[in-house]
Amino acid sequence: MTWRFALLVAPVDAADTRTDFSGTLSVIDPDAPALSVGELSTQRGDGIFETIGVVDGHPQEVQAHLERLAHSARLCDLPAPNLSQWRAAVDRAAAECPAGESAIKLLLSRGVERVATGLEGPTAWVTASPAADFTRARAEGIRVATLDRGLDSGAAVRAPWLLLGAKTLSYAVNMAALREAHRRGADDAIFLASDGYVLEAPTASVILRRDDRFITPEPTGGILQGTTQLSLFDWLEENGHSTDYEHVPAGSLADADGLWLVSSVRLAAPVTHLDGREMPVDAELTAAMNAYLLSPRD
Amino acid sequence: MTWRFALLVAPVDAADTRTDFSGTLSVIDPDAPALSVGELSTQRGDGIFETIGVVDGHPQEVQAHLERLAHSARLCDLPAPNLSQWRAAVDRAAAECPAGESAIKLLLSRGVERVATGLEGPTAWVTASPAADFTRARAEGIRVATLDRGLDSGAAVRAPWLLLGAKTLSYAVNMAALREAHRRGADDAIFLASDGYVLEAPTASVILRRDDRFITPEPTGGILQGTTQLSLFDWLEENGHSTDYEHVPAGSLADADGLWLVSSVRLAAPVTHLDGREMPVDAELTAAMNAYLLSPRD
Repeated sequence: MTWRFALLVAPVDAADTRTDFSGTLSVIDPDAPALSVGELSTQRGDGIFETIGVVDGHPQEVQAHLERLAHSARLCDLPAPNLSQWRAAVDRAAAECPAGESAIKLLLSRGVERVATGLEGPTAWVTASPAADFTRARAEGIRVATLDRGLDSGAAVRAPWLLLGAKTLSYAVNMAALREAHRRGADDAIFLASDGYVLEAPTASVILRRDDRFITPEPTGGILQGTTQLSLFDWLEENGHSTDYEHVPAGSLADADGLWLVSSVRLAAPVTHLDGREMPVDAELTAAMNAYLLSPRD
Repeated sequence: MTWRFALLVAPVDAADTRTDFSGTLSVIDPDAPALSVGELSTQRGDGIFETIGVVDGHPQEVQAHLERLAHSARLCDLPAPNLSQWRAAVDRAAAECPAGESAIKLLLSRGVERVATGLEGPTAWVTASPAADFTRARAEGIRVATLDRGLDSGAAVRAPWLLLGAKTLSYAVNMAALREAHRRGADDAIFLASDGYVLEAPTASVILRRDDRFITPEPTGGILQGTTQLSLFDWLEENGHSTDYEHVPAGSLADADGLWLVSSVRLAAPVTHLDGREMPVDAELTAAMNAYLLSPRD
């Protein structure tokens, strides 16, 4: 049986300044029953999450993930997470991760629905498990299909209740998009807005290259701000490349000088084919990107 | 403590023709841990559900709910549910429901994510609990705010991976829309397509009246086909009214001669105010609708 680790977190107020959170973290059997059927995460996908990559026991970019968790909580009207408590939970889980690559997931649910008493406050848990082996996706690349997300690129600003900038547990559409991509012979998908702009992948950010400029779609609320994309942009700038946020028309993807999907655990996967059409791949640069992304980052 | 009942269902193949499913249904403590943290329902909102109204122990319109569960499963590429097994589970749960109104929920999740072995097949469970008291919503009506759903009315046909006709567990946006409605001083919401057509409410169908015609938005895949709406249309026809499915422009809501949100447990709630503007309410007809909806229906 593959190793796996889980912690139940008893969320404390964001203003709680204690320094020892060990009393609020309970180690549980990750395969045993732990959540009740009244969980709103399971009934309504009503909660938020983060996935953190771990390399040789070091959790990557923890602060950026915690800040995005807090951002998602605000958008979803969830109680503000106590980031010190969540960092303690991440550290506790990371201590269980062996050499090699792992993934830590943070989940904050609206809580358990009680018929008589209403909500009892949020529930939360953290899991750690080995990462899948993404060596091949990083080195040989992935085939990608573009898929219509149905929404226009102005929807996020116009209708914040669509929660487009929040990383919610309601990922059924993201998972369906991956199945549709597989049906089309692709490994992954890129979502397009209905007015023709590039958004994001179901579980990754999109980066394209034009000459020596690296571009990602402007995070105007319609997409998640990618923690790995942010980190990689810093590295690209430090290495003499220029980076930019733009409205990217779908038609410009095929003309790009390079295209990547980047995410916390798979890291940088170069796109070899977009809707069946071959794309240029810079194997050397991609290897350097992944070497950086696999180095300890905070 | 209010009564509550839960069953874990071990899903069997749709082709399984046994007649006794009791060995596949396990009564569990609804408040005790029952689901593992690897549940994809909770991690990804990846599953489907139905909510069935129960009146004096009689579950309403079970066949229509089971058929919609099967329809949702198809749209989500989930294994076809064995409807005889689900009916046995509904009957078992209904037997626990006392006099008065209750709600039975059916949940079918994609299953538990196993790092080493992949998926082990779907998990499923059924809960029963007392219904909230909706006497006031039925008699005195509700205030409703219209909210942009971001999607145009052609999205469902163009992009089936958006799962618009499936009743998935990914309801975070539906819940956020209800919170937005409350912020606007309303009790509930009606979603509008970005091209200006009426869709549905976050957890109900929309019916409007023009003279003696009762109209609901055409179920072209962009909305759920409401079981209560279907049942009520039968009753309206039997009582000499005409009913129709139409593309309903948002602007025509305010001119309607009556407006209702109908759903399995709250039943018919007349809309007294739409975006703050008073709407005509036919209290006598609404009372007759709810008397019908509270009578035993199959």
